Amino acid sequence: MEPIPVAILGATGVVGQRFVQLLDGHPWFRVTTLCASDRSVGKTYREGCRWLLDTPMPAWASTMILQPTTAEAVNEPIAFSALPAEVALEVEPQLAQKGCVVCSNASAHRMEEDVPLLLPEVNAEHVELIHWQRGRRGWRGAIVTNPNCTSTGMTVVLKALDRVFGVKRAIAVSMQALSGAGYPGVASLEIVDNVIPFIRGEEEKVAWEPRKMLGTLQNGQVVLHPIVISAQTNRVAVLDGHMVCLTVECESRPTLEETIHVLETYTVPEFIADLPSTPRPPILVRLEEDRPQPRLDRMSGRGMSTVVGRIRADEVLDLKMVILSHNTIRGAAGASIYNAELIVRAGWLA
Amino acid sequence: MEPIPVAILGATGVVGQRFVQLLDGHPWFRVTTLCASDRSVGKTYREGCRWLLDTPMPAWASTMILQPTTAEAVNEPIAFSALPAEVALEVEPQLAQKGCVVCSNASAHRMEEDVPLLLPEVNAEHVELIHWQRGRRGWRGAIVTNPNCTSTGMTVVLKALDRVFGVKRAIAVSMQALSGAGYPGVASLEIVDNVIPFIRGEEEKVAWEPRKMLGTLQNGQVVLHPIVISAQTNRVAVLDGHMVCLTVECESRPTLEETIHVLETYTVPEFIADLPSTPRPPILVRLEEDRPQPRLDRMSGRGMSTVVGRIRADEVLDLKMVILSHNTIRGAAGASIYNAELIVRAGWLA
Amino acid sequence: MEPIPVAILGATGVVGQRFVQLLDGHPWFRVTTLCASDRSVGKTYREGCRWLLDTPMPAWASTMILQPTTAEAVNEPIAFSALPAEVALEVEPQLAQKGCVVCSNASAHRMEEDVPLLLPEVNAEHVELIHWQRGRRGWRGAIVTNPNCTSTGMTVVLKALDRVFGVKRAIAVSMQALSGAGYPGVASLEIVDNVIPFIRGEEEKVAWEPRKMLGTLQNGQVVLHPIVISAQTNRVAVLDGHMVCLTVECESRPTLEETIHVLETYTVPEFIADLPSTPRPPILVRLEEDRPQPRLDRMSGRGMSTVVGRIRADEVLDLKMVILSHNTIRGAAGASIYNAELIVRAGWLA
Amino acid sequence: MEPIPVAILGATGVVGQRFVQLLDGHPWFRVTTLCASDRSVGKTYREGCRWLLDTPMPAWASTMILQPTTAEAVNEPIAFSALPAEVALEVEPQLAQKGCVVCSNASAHRMEEDVPLLLPEVNAEHVELIHWQRGRRGWRGAIVTNPNCTSTGMTVVLKALDRVFGVKRAIAVSMQALSGAGYPGVASLEIVDNVIPFIRGEEEKVAWEPRKMLGTLQNGQVVLHPIVISAQTNRVAVLDGHMVCLTVECESRPTLEETIHVLETYTVPEFIADLPSTPRPPILVRLEEDRPQPRLDRMSGRGMSTVVGRIRADEVLDLKMVILSHNTIRGAAGASIYNAELIVRAGWLA
Repeated sequence: MEPIPVAILGATGVVGQRFVQLLDGHPWFRVTTLCASDRSVGKTYREGCRWLLDTPMPAWASTMILQPTTAEAVNEPIAFSALPAEVALEVEPQLAQKGCVVCSNASAHRMEEDVPLLLPEVNAEHVELIHWQRGRRGWRGAIVTNPNCTSTGMTVVLKALDRVFGVKRAIAVSMQALSGAGYPGVASLEIVDNVIPFIRGEEEKVAWEPRKMLGTLQNGQVVLHPIVISAQTNRVAVLDGHMVCLTVECESRPTLEETIHVLETYTVPEFIADLPSTPRPPILVRLEEDRPQPRLDRMSGRGMSTVVGRIRADEVLDLKMVILSHNTIRGAAGASIYNAELIVRAGWLA
Repeated sequence: MEPIPVAILGATGVVGQRFVQLLDGHPWFRVTTLCASDRSVGKTYREGCRWLLDTPMPAWASTMILQPTTAEAVNEPIAFSALPAEVALEVEPQLAQKGCVVCSNASAHRMEEDVPLLLPEVNAEHVELIHWQRGRRGWRGAIVTNPNCTSTGMTVVLKALDRVFGVKRAIAVSMQALSGAGYPGVASLEIVDNVIPFIRGEEEKVAWEPRKMLGTLQNGQVVLHPIVISAQTNRVAVLDGHMVCLTVECESRPTLEETIHVLETYTVPEFIADLPSTPRPPILVRLEEDRPQPRLDRMSGRGMSTVVGRIRADEVLDLKMVILSHNTIRGAAGASIYNAELIVRAGWLA
Repeated sequence: MEPIPVAILGATGVVGQRFVQLLDGHPWFRVTTLCASDRSVGKTYREGCRWLLDTPMPAWASTMILQPTTAEAVNEPIAFSALPAEVALEVEPQLAQKGCVVCSNASAHRMEEDVPLLLPEVNAEHVELIHWQRGRRGWRGAIVTNPNCTSTGMTVVLKALDRVFGVKRAIAVSMQALSGAGYPGVASLEIVDNVIPFIRGEEEKVAWEPRKMLGTLQNGQVVLHPIVISAQTNRVAVLDGHMVCLTVECESRPTLEETIHVLETYTVPEFIADLPSTPRPPILVRLEEDRPQPRLDRMSGRGMSTVVGRIRADEVLDLKMVILSHNTIRGAAGASIYNAELIVRAGWLA
Repeated sequence: MEPIPVAILGATGVVGQRFVQLLDGHPWFRVTTLCASDRSVGKTYREGCRWLLDTPMPAWASTMILQPTTAEAVNEPIAFSALPAEVALEVEPQLAQKGCVVCSNASAHRMEEDVPLLLPEVNAEHVELIHWQRGRRGWRGAIVTNPNCTSTGMTVVLKALDRVFGVKRAIAVSMQALSGAGYPGVASLEIVDNVIPFIRGEEEKVAWEPRKMLGTLQNGQVVLHPIVISAQTNRVAVLDGHMVCLTVECESRPTLEETIHVLETYTVPEFIADLPSTPRPPILVRLEEDRPQPRLDRMSGRGMSTVVGRIRADEVLDLKMVILSHNTIRGAAGASIYNAELIVRAGWLA
């Protein structure tokens, strides 16, 4: 198979860098355009990007010239977007209009009813919304979004539980990594010897996004799942890896053994089981008393697995547990790439 | 008033050092004995103690000779105990037997039915258990305990809410400071760029201790409060200050205004309102969107106030909020000293 | 004595906040004007300032209205400046012109030959430069600067050594705190699990400033001290407190005992020995094998003492040692205040 | 080629874990014995080891049964030792006696005159000391040591400079990672918001070991290089990667261009240029103003390259620069493995 050319929008930021890193050597995709904001356009990627990852910047990327963030600059069939919401709002539809499938990490279009909020392990069938999106908007391309980095791991777990036990209510308290705030993001003076119990806009997303992803597709519309979620989100001094302490109420109270079994045996649909980014396993259950931990477990399944531990019966609701997922891989760049792979496999490229 | 001589048991540890720091210049108490474990006995405090506080070791303490942790070594009417549970189990009753009132931070005797688990803002009247304790055990002294450092702040808040709205169920997720694990405690290799979602024995204490403190004293017995509490406890890279994300269900759902009002106007009983360690205010409500934060707020009320912020209606239960208290002051050494002041005021010294 | 009204320029930044904190309750000075940059003018200090210190914002400051950073806004006889260099370059001379003595932490005027670079323990007599400055510039006020935060501690030590042994060459390697970079300053993503071996412009200052401070005043000019200094400056994950590993060559090689004696007995001139900010002691020698440490020792002498430890003979030059001083107190706000006290004492107010 | 069976002594510690990680999939060696201290003997590696690396414990290791640290337990031709010095002192000679080549990270035998202190990039020819060692001691095996983790990177650089310019004196100030202290090692309470300016025994090693490695082999003896080195060693809150700020005096003062050229073109001897662990490149010169940084650069050359940056002329001596190497890979486990590869290549296996 000929590699598919792809563009990265917002290529110099924390998530943009992850796109570059994860697409280095990708078996299906080859990056042919890197877009950045005005102050970096015309520079090489090496000059325009403050690279913060601990693997070296790929040589092919370092000499690429940064392009403007416009529809004209992108002629690839797939664009990965790490744009700020307000820029995404404008540029992503223009790209979809001209035939590009935009796999977007931006929050701008997640709530629109004909835009898939896609997590292949959870709602691969929602990719069908592209059909309705194209019909309604007259686009040849499409916009497909992935969820907020904190929603990601808990939605995978909620889905696994929901299929068997039905989920009714959940309380999520997060401890989130610094990379989730981008660069420069959180000032060091604010986080050394500290915790910040507030992340703007985050709790609303964590409460709503899982309902769309767990929802059912009916006649081109997603019927939201009735689960009620309460979120408290906190920033801690961790580089990568969002942890969520989750407490869940189910329709029928499962035993611990049932819960562990259901999570460990959770699989993705057959037709996407062999995509390059499919997490192996989708859910990794750790039985030690003190796992998962961000530094030790965030790279499980090359950063794509959802890691669950400390599964216990809960005294107030039914179950409690700790969930970890890598926020800039499974929760951002890896998510968009995985979505793109699903789209290619399902034949939705323009 | 003549200063009352006091002893400190476990004087070289993290909590022992706080006792020394907080008792430096205390208006009622003067430290006359410092006890330590065998390997330090006979050394000066300066030699035997790896001082980790950012104020200098008081000069009077530095030259005191460390005594063995035995009943014979302590002849003061009050002893403050920062002993490990297994040592406390043996030595504290011997001291109580010989007439000493032991104000203990150890968990060893907290669950015994005739031992007060005392938080003056919450259950000052439980000090009366000393009467029954003496009667039953034939002691001239007493053992009075303070709660676990994580239980402390949330119990103050639960009490304030319970008085007005009745509390039924609560879910507590903590982010706890390193000093709570003592010294050497948590290895740096385990906590830099990391969170540890497990603290041995902690969740059980957080679930049970508030029930005793919120309970009512009837005929020399504490009837446990029926509240059901679920706890998830985590260790984060913070030096001092335990945070709890608390979600509460009440008998009657309060509005935010009512909640804030109830917390802000919460007072301690009149007869202990002017003790040297009485927190001013007992509960400090912060209305900013991103407070409390451990580094910025842990010293509120000289480390004795309970700081509450982010008070919101909860989608699953009734209320959610973030609670901070200084774990080695309000949650440990300061708590024992405050209890001792209450005991002196109430006339329970032998 | 009537309190002297003072203004603070750059009042909302990291150093500005230290000015507010240190001037709270100052026996000689009362803050009557707070100036800030345009986007904060007209707000209260509480609204315009992201307070990052662990003591509460003083009540008197919180309700003050932020004024523009102009000569018109300041009518006090003393202004403390925490301005960026480029703003200081313009505004500070205007204030001096109109009669204000500007005690400045900015680097803008440090190198000018008639501007004192003043460290009272080191070169109190340089305050006389004000006479020549006024004569030459026709000012009624003055500009007096304090050195860079990293230069400060090592210059105090070099002075003590120079008086007795003569200093010829020095190699300084620093490990500097985050607060030295201001707010937002260093991004957390850059410093967690990391060291940054570069601070823009810092090494040049560290190499040059001590030469001026150690220099002698002759006919209204400072003759630079001939010492040659090499600096390597690094940023580490510490909130406050700059450490310097210093290696020194002297005219005559001192013994360790002589060195310790000279440092421990170093005193400030009699006429400033009782200023409110005079460090007690000026130099604190620690003899333990592992001190000074930033977290434990930075507040020595209320943050104004220079702490020296690990004094050893050096195999290449003559002596090596570790020096710590609090970068935003002794190295910034406290330095300017101390200078102002000296100026008042010496009778240089307009 | 048949894989060579190897044993790991001290397999459960921080360096032992690196041995297991680096030997996973090694093209020449296969681990057949893991030895640990008494309290872990008989357990599986999974049970006996608190694995702290961010890649999973290899499956083959996890089920191996831990053996006692005795000569009897090891029958492999090569043993890698991560033993504490006092245990190494006893066991390593017994192993060498019975024919095992011990590649040791322990400091116990480094100073013995017939024991190679080996860094293949620097003194590959010192491996010949094995001949004299065997003759003198009657051993069939051998003990070969690698240097202290802080000495490693600076010795590589000093060697490159010495070959061309001659090195006379050097001042080294280190900022060292937590993993260098092992586990539990540095307490988190001591290093969060702090620097510790002392590491026991470290400065002596850093001052002496390079002299042996840079020395010349004459008649079965190493004549120490006459360089004089002064060291100041500090612990900082970094997980892995030791940084050294080095100032050097040369016989002839090189220009910056010459220095960069000499470092960049430094090569290892031909006969070891293709060993599995040979660093590519041996020295990586970074020309950015703010590199190397531990988190970003420690994995250069798969953790085996020495990274040098900020090369400048020095005002006091001749050159200054910042050197980084990965302390548990290039400075410990990787070093021993590289040495073993050299020994195999040179035909010194018993």
